[in-house]
Amino acid sequence: MIAKEPRASIDLSHHINVVSRSRNPSPLKDIVKYMAVEGMVSLAGGLPHPSLFPFASVSLSAYKSNTVLDAYSPDEQHPLADDINIGRDSAAEQMGLITALQYDSGPGHTALRTWAVKFVKEVFKPAYDDWDVILNSGNTDGWTKVVRLLCENGDYLLCEEQTYPSAQAVWAPMGCKALPIAIDDQGLRVDVLENLLSGWQSSHPGIRRPRLLYTVPVGSNPTGTTMQEARKRAIYDVCVKYDIVICEDDPYYFLQYPTYNASQPPYDPLVAENTTVDEYVKGLAPSFMSLDYQGRVIRLESFSKTLAPGNRVGFFVTNPIFIERLLRGTEVETQAPSGWAVLMLSNLLQTWGSAGYLQWLAQLRNQYRARRDWMCSALESNFVLKSVDKVKDPPTGAEGLLAYANGQAKAPIFSFVPPTAGMFLWARFYLYGSPRFQKLQQSADCIDPEKSFQDELWLALANKLVLLTPGSYYTPWQGKDKVTTEARGAENGICFFRLSFSMVTKEQMELGITRMHEVLQDFWQ
Amino acid sequence: MIAKEPRASIDLSHHINVVSRSRNPSPLKDIVKYMAVEGMVSLAGGLPHPSLFPFASVSLSAYKSNTVLDAYSPDEQHPLADDINIGRDSAAEQMGLITALQYDSGPGHTALRTWAVKFVKEVFKPAYDDWDVILNSGNTDGWTKVVRLLCENGDYLLCEEQTYPSAQAVWAPMGCKALPIAIDDQGLRVDVLENLLSGWQSSHPGIRRPRLLYTVPVGSNPTGTTMQEARKRAIYDVCVKYDIVICEDDPYYFLQYPTYNASQPPYDPLVAENTTVDEYVKGLAPSFMSLDYQGRVIRLESFSKTLAPGNRVGFFVTNPIFIERLLRGTEVETQAPSGWAVLMLSNLLQTWGSAGYLQWLAQLRNQYRARRDWMCSALESNFVLKSVDKVKDPPTGAEGLLAYANGQAKAPIFSFVPPTAGMFLWARFYLYGSPRFQKLQQSADCIDPEKSFQDELWLALANKLVLLTPGSYYTPWQGKDKVTTEARGAENGICFFRLSFSMVTKEQMELGITRMHEVLQDFWQ
Repeated sequence: MIAKEPRASIDLSHHINVVSRSRNPSPLKDIVKYMAVEGMVSLAGGLPHPSLFPFASVSLSAYKSNTVLDAYSPDEQHPLADDINIGRDSAAEQMGLITALQYDSGPGHTALRTWAVKFVKEVFKPAYDDWDVILNSGNTDGWTKVVRLLCENGDYLLCEEQTYPSAQAVWAPMGCKALPIAIDDQGLRVDVLENLLSGWQSSHPGIRRPRLLYTVPVGSNPTGTTMQEARKRAIYDVCVKYDIVICEDDPYYFLQYPTYNASQPPYDPLVAENTTVDEYVKGLAPSFMSLDYQGRVIRLESFSKTLAPGNRVGFFVTNPIFIERLLRGTEVETQAPSGWAVLMLSNLLQTWGSAGYLQWLAQLRNQYRARRDWMCSALESNFVLKSVDKVKDPPTGAEGLLAYANGQAKAPIFSFVPPTAGMFLWARFYLYGSPRFQKLQQSADCIDPEKSFQDELWLALANKLVLLTPGSYYTPWQGKDKVTTEARGAENGICFFRLSFSMVTKEQMELGITRMHEVLQDFWQ
Repeated sequence: MIAKEPRASIDLSHHINVVSRSRNPSPLKDIVKYMAVEGMVSLAGGLPHPSLFPFASVSLSAYKSNTVLDAYSPDEQHPLADDINIGRDSAAEQMGLITALQYDSGPGHTALRTWAVKFVKEVFKPAYDDWDVILNSGNTDGWTKVVRLLCENGDYLLCEEQTYPSAQAVWAPMGCKALPIAIDDQGLRVDVLENLLSGWQSSHPGIRRPRLLYTVPVGSNPTGTTMQEARKRAIYDVCVKYDIVICEDDPYYFLQYPTYNASQPPYDPLVAENTTVDEYVKGLAPSFMSLDYQGRVIRLESFSKTLAPGNRVGFFVTNPIFIERLLRGTEVETQAPSGWAVLMLSNLLQTWGSAGYLQWLAQLRNQYRARRDWMCSALESNFVLKSVDKVKDPPTGAEGLLAYANGQAKAPIFSFVPPTAGMFLWARFYLYGSPRFQKLQQSADCIDPEKSFQDELWLALANKLVLLTPGSYYTPWQGKDKVTTEARGAENGICFFRLSFSMVTKEQMELGITRMHEVLQDFWQ
């Protein structure tokens, strides 16, 4: 039997917008191939001579890839890998300063791009074979370039019911409108997506069907949900049926960890038994890209949550037609990412090796696991767990939902599904039990009592010195008229807050949740 | 007597385009001010904890700011400044790794921005007082953001007759068309600009008047021209009169050097008497920004030619209304530039000090002066200098024009004005004397004999192993119908080549010019 080999991508060039289609390769870049001719004297390039760069050498010291960080003492010193000494010239395969500091071609430095191709091949294994990789300056830049590749002004875009505000900050000023898809504990719901698309012509007569889905499929910002393989397959199939391009913005992908177990003490990376890298990789839900047999996924792969956000380097993985147009855009809009960042990343990753990076990722997600546990356990100690049956308006399909009440109260005042990836816990608040909310509802001049309540609660929390993010920040913009509870499609008597567990210590987290408890007591009495 | 104080900028917000006007500040950023409250527990931010960044320290070694490079031996070792050791935390005012590697706000790291403000104040002294600075990811990114700030699809843009192709690669796909303004030895001509604008309504009835001028005013790419103060003032006045915003893309500003003196040997930085930093700064033609009393100049200030292109960091200087909108764009499109680059630059510039950077710049431009001299002198030794009177179709207002012939020929075959800034020599070729050109002219199916001749000559040169850049690369795109010599407004019997003197050694330059001489001999017999 012959193993099923991945095939080439299909032609999706009809998705490319007018501006992107109109880009021509820079004529200057054509000259580059002649420069390589043996013996050529080039008076053509406009590059400064590297002898005129004042940087002589740089030495980087980084942790060993097998460092196990102490979640409880974040400022601990850690064992260091051998110093990475970078001179002006590249020694062997290492990237040198002169290469990093000179102008670079659009796809980005070979050193990091080669690493990225290998990494994608090993870890993601896309289901088609002519995918390619080019660098970008981080996922913000990446997503902007995707919108500028595919969207026309005024287009509709598919996204989750709650979405990352900076993502829509690109498309909303272009007059593009969001089509928020209801979510459950795994993110966007297939049935809702399918219904919207199958009924498009009757619901939106004469309007071009949306052709791009923006999703944060793992550890979603803000809802913390993670799509498992079956969900992704089902969504992918709908996207094939309706010819939708999927942009997966997946910075939390490598921060997947096991489900929360309330009966156990918070996970402690220093004492827990370590999983092997193999087990870790096998435990990761496959990405959309891994399921993509047509090339309709654009993956934005990031180092921001895995190495550091300040790098401002990431990469696109997608079909060669999109890559070529993204490259044309990159040449004109930003050029390759900063050579300093690429230099540091490529040298670190080369020193660590592929296995080393995975080792780093495996321990890193343990840190987030510990932090998720701290937050869940702080909520557990301040509030009273209630049976999910007691929830009057439970969320759809929320496996593992935990509902909490304040003190003696019977009805839960909030609920959440403990996340299994990323850095966010998304709390759903039940407002009917709050006297203040009832008053707002009865007020004639309050057009959106849920929003007003949320804002009051947020301010009260901030005044008690605990800062959450209001759920309304993540409501996609659907047009100027969509401002009331009804119009924006919000549920009655419900509001949300995002709690982030990435940045504070266990003690601060406990203090914050205690303060939150006090404020909720006031609001729900 | 009271000294005349700079005033505030005027309101130019009517220039901002619809998309840019529609940007809202990110709601998430509003939370930031609450984070600073004493004792606040923030569960709001989505930042990874810095203990999770694997970078421990970095040490940078750079040349002393008073290094005088040897133009003849570029690979020489140079005296080093004290090592710049950067730990995770910022020591005193130095920027540390954790600051560099964390997410940053849109305007860019304070360390470098503060330096930039000080530098602008000391060196450029804008003629109004509420200008501001934000960082960008290099001038390519900067110019893209300016186009996205001001231009609507289909707009007309003002630019020099020959312009930087990557600049128009942003606007052309948007359906914007160039209005190329004829140039002379100082770049764009005021009379032509004034005539175009005053006659706009009759020449372009019903079409919105152009509102943005793109210019590389110093050491222009490709033409090498530099505008002196009087020219800039005159252009600025026309822009005030017609309400034009000026974007000055000025990467070669600090590479201004004295005029060429054929009677002297090429300048040698190692033996020449050094000018003081003060003399150097005084010798720089003032920038548009220095003359700008209204705030209608957007200056793109770059480190690419002065420190290294791979940094991908630059900054905008302009009025506060534009700055605020550029910031909104930056937050959404790219975020702040790479922390690594900002870290290296800000630490280097702090170590050197303002005076040190100027010292570096003063010696750097000497390197380009030496290289300009090498090229001029290589042309001088291969070709025969002719009186400018012998030029049949001389360029307009070309002070200092040098015209050269091949061997015994009477008529010059090319001419140029030796540049006084930057890295490019722009050669104007006179084609009527070439039998090959005459043949092309007589050919019925050659719609643009100048372009065809240029292409043939370019290929012949490349085959003889000397690579120039064809002048047509720099012809602004004016629309699909503008492809013939006439339609694109080109002069008959003229073509151009750009010769860059930045990248090759003296020996290679001489070899390249010798090869060029041989090829020209064939073409002009």
